[in-house]
Amino acid sequence: MKILVTGFDPFGGESINPAFEVIKKLREKIGDAEVIKLQIPTVFHKSIKTITDKIDEVKPDVVLMIGQAGGRFDITVERVGINVDDARIADNEGNQPVDEPIDPEGLPAHFATIPVKAIVQEIRESGIPASVSNTAGTFVCNHVLYGILNYIYKNKLDIRAGFIHIPFLPEQVVTKPNTPSMALDTMVNAIEKAVEVIARTEDDIKRAEGTIC
Amino acid sequence: MKILVTGFDPFGGESINPAFEVIKKLREKIGDAEVIKLQIPTVFHKSIKTITDKIDEVKPDVVLMIGQAGGRFDITVERVGINVDDARIADNEGNQPVDEPIDPEGLPAHFATIPVKAIVQEIRESGIPASVSNTAGTFVCNHVLYGILNYIYKNKLDIRAGFIHIPFLPEQVVTKPNTPSMALDTMVNAIEKAVEVIARTEDDIKRAEGTIC
Amino acid sequence: MKILVTGFDPFGGESINPAFEVIKKLREKIGDAEVIKLQIPTVFHKSIKTITDKIDEVKPDVVLMIGQAGGRFDITVERVGINVDDARIADNEGNQPVDEPIDPEGLPAHFATIPVKAIVQEIRESGIPASVSNTAGTFVCNHVLYGILNYIYKNKLDIRAGFIHIPFLPEQVVTKPNTPSMALDTMVNAIEKAVEVIARTEDDIKRAEGTIC
Amino acid sequence: MKILVTGFDPFGGESINPAFEVIKKLREKIGDAEVIKLQIPTVFHKSIKTITDKIDEVKPDVVLMIGQAGGRFDITVERVGINVDDARIADNEGNQPVDEPIDPEGLPAHFATIPVKAIVQEIRESGIPASVSNTAGTFVCNHVLYGILNYIYKNKLDIRAGFIHIPFLPEQVVTKPNTPSMALDTMVNAIEKAVEVIARTEDDIKRAEGTIC
Repeated sequence: MKILVTGFDPFGGESINPAFEVIKKLREKIGDAEVIKLQIPTVFHKSIKTITDKIDEVKPDVVLMIGQAGGRFDITVERVGINVDDARIADNEGNQPVDEPIDPEGLPAHFATIPVKAIVQEIRESGIPASVSNTAGTFVCNHVLYGILNYIYKNKLDIRAGFIHIPFLPEQVVTKPNTPSMALDTMVNAIEKAVEVIARTEDDIKRAEGTIC
Repeated sequence: MKILVTGFDPFGGESINPAFEVIKKLREKIGDAEVIKLQIPTVFHKSIKTITDKIDEVKPDVVLMIGQAGGRFDITVERVGINVDDARIADNEGNQPVDEPIDPEGLPAHFATIPVKAIVQEIRESGIPASVSNTAGTFVCNHVLYGILNYIYKNKLDIRAGFIHIPFLPEQVVTKPNTPSMALDTMVNAIEKAVEVIARTEDDIKRAEGTIC
Repeated sequence: MKILVTGFDPFGGESINPAFEVIKKLREKIGDAEVIKLQIPTVFHKSIKTITDKIDEVKPDVVLMIGQAGGRFDITVERVGINVDDARIADNEGNQPVDEPIDPEGLPAHFATIPVKAIVQEIRESGIPASVSNTAGTFVCNHVLYGILNYIYKNKLDIRAGFIHIPFLPEQVVTKPNTPSMALDTMVNAIEKAVEVIARTEDDIKRAEGTIC
Repeated sequence: MKILVTGFDPFGGESINPAFEVIKKLREKIGDAEVIKLQIPTVFHKSIKTITDKIDEVKPDVVLMIGQAGGRFDITVERVGINVDDARIADNEGNQPVDEPIDPEGLPAHFATIPVKAIVQEIRESGIPASVSNTAGTFVCNHVLYGILNYIYKNKLDIRAGFIHIPFLPEQVVTKPNTPSMALDTMVNAIEKAVEVIARTEDDIKRAEGTIC
């Protein structure tokens, strides 16, 4: 099976993006999965287009998108993408949409189709903290999560897709007091575990991982 | 105009719920708005039914639901409810649905129809911290937010609806180190401000209040 | 008995200081205690001098110093002042001492002589979160705590002294995401409780309130 | 030069202690420094005795104590140890002293004599977050910091000493939501950097690293 793994280029004043640093270090072959790596621009719509072009080209079975979630403590697997852009900062080409739908004719949201809870469980079992997240924000991360799920849905493609957020790297928080971080190797291990689970599991496990609010 | 304001009874081992404490202290008449108060059970589906029964009875123009968000720092106005229950703890009647849709035939999500950002701005201007939230969790708070928006949508009712989360009260955090809280009077002021804005504003303001992730 | 209660003027870019806002609202007479209020400058050494001048003038039985601890969640009663200034920002007259002793001939530290744990317990019992703190920082708060305890120690005065830190006010955190705050009335109640305990208790209670690290 | 590096055994329900895990992986020779490793019991007074016995035996130039600070985000170099034990939990032999002096005839505190700020700067320059801490708590970490500085002071030994706190390991926080952690390799690098600085620097740098409160 083929899995397309994407990561953003740096944004928001950071000189690196842990998402692409992780992707560069992923093994090309994980279990039965052939890993195809893709850097995508931190730009509204262009990011989606970069991925859908690659989908059309390589016909992957799975699209796994990776992004930086500065301030989060652990690996978070996103449950849902919502149909709205609300950018607190401009993207890398100066776009700052506020309360605009990603697809004016799309559904209000799409749920991820990778086995979210099985991934969380597997990462935890390897000694790395992980959890389910119920919001991917309203910037480019949510944008591509919704955008790709929407593209797959509208085109009735047989592709599973989802998004995993990773924390800052230690070097990114040297000047940010009381901000959590995670080592690159730890994050690479976590994403490789995720790819393994996705490759061998179609159905998710049922296990309470909800949030009160 | 008539505004139905709802609050849950206590749950999760707490002996009080700030949501209903706040509602009890709301003025009955706020500007032009007549406030109708309703305590609802922290129980899946029964909570929705309690509200929809009241909607049918009093025909409100707006439904504003209030709930406790233990651990949050400020007043958070919810942007969206998603079509899933995933209960980390049991509700007050022992139900603990995991990854079940609220409405198996419903849309994946519904966006709140109250002016979310105008509310946030007005509360802040009165000196109280507030922000937009992109997740109401996956417990009963999200459940009623999605459930009521879905009921209104399916029945084509001319009712606006939304959800505001409030922090713990100070007395609730005496035994919870490093947990934020907010005074009852501050929260009552915030909710009265919210009612004022909702009563006078149909359309929301456009203003970046997004979250990176 | 007479208790001198001091609070700083605003610093660090804030337009108000909750410490002096609290002091202004304190009752003049709390139980048997006569409350004498004193605003002090957020300036190294001048702050100590302002208090010792007042001590010489009014001969209080107790000196209770109040200061803002932006970022803390609860009322924190300080256990100890240490003999060092290390200013991350300049004080209100531009002084920024780095790693200088407050008193080059003083002891390395002085422990507060108010009943720290009895105060914490009393405040908690009134429904307000409180805890013991083991560091008052290295700015003017620690400076006056050490300075006044040192003055009393060197001059063999029969005066008890201590320091209580209070959080930001809600209006101070409107522009500071995820920062805890506390209502003015709640903080006034807490400090009045502290004064009551100090007035009636010479000896502290013994009760584990330590910090692992 | 000889540097004695100590780490505690596990406590507080944890099955490992990152402090000793780090020490096991330290190089035996770092620059000019010969590293002598010592595991110490998480027991009041016995921990101090274990270190002072080793000091008498190996006559080190420096004692660097390492301990776990669960909940902290970065490598924290302690500035001061205070003369009090206040144990929130029992130590590994069931002792739980509350508000007892470590040495009834000792000074109220001792400042660390390793170059605290030079260490922080060097660790940061290698891309690892670090900061100065003004409290080592009131459990066994502060106990040995104060105890060893006090032993050196009273016996007029020509030994520098200090304490560095390290965060939880990732595997320790798998079941602790929203708790920061740091990879073992990152912590080993940080402590080796600290040893390097200590070996080549007698005097600390002067650089504002203070805390407001």
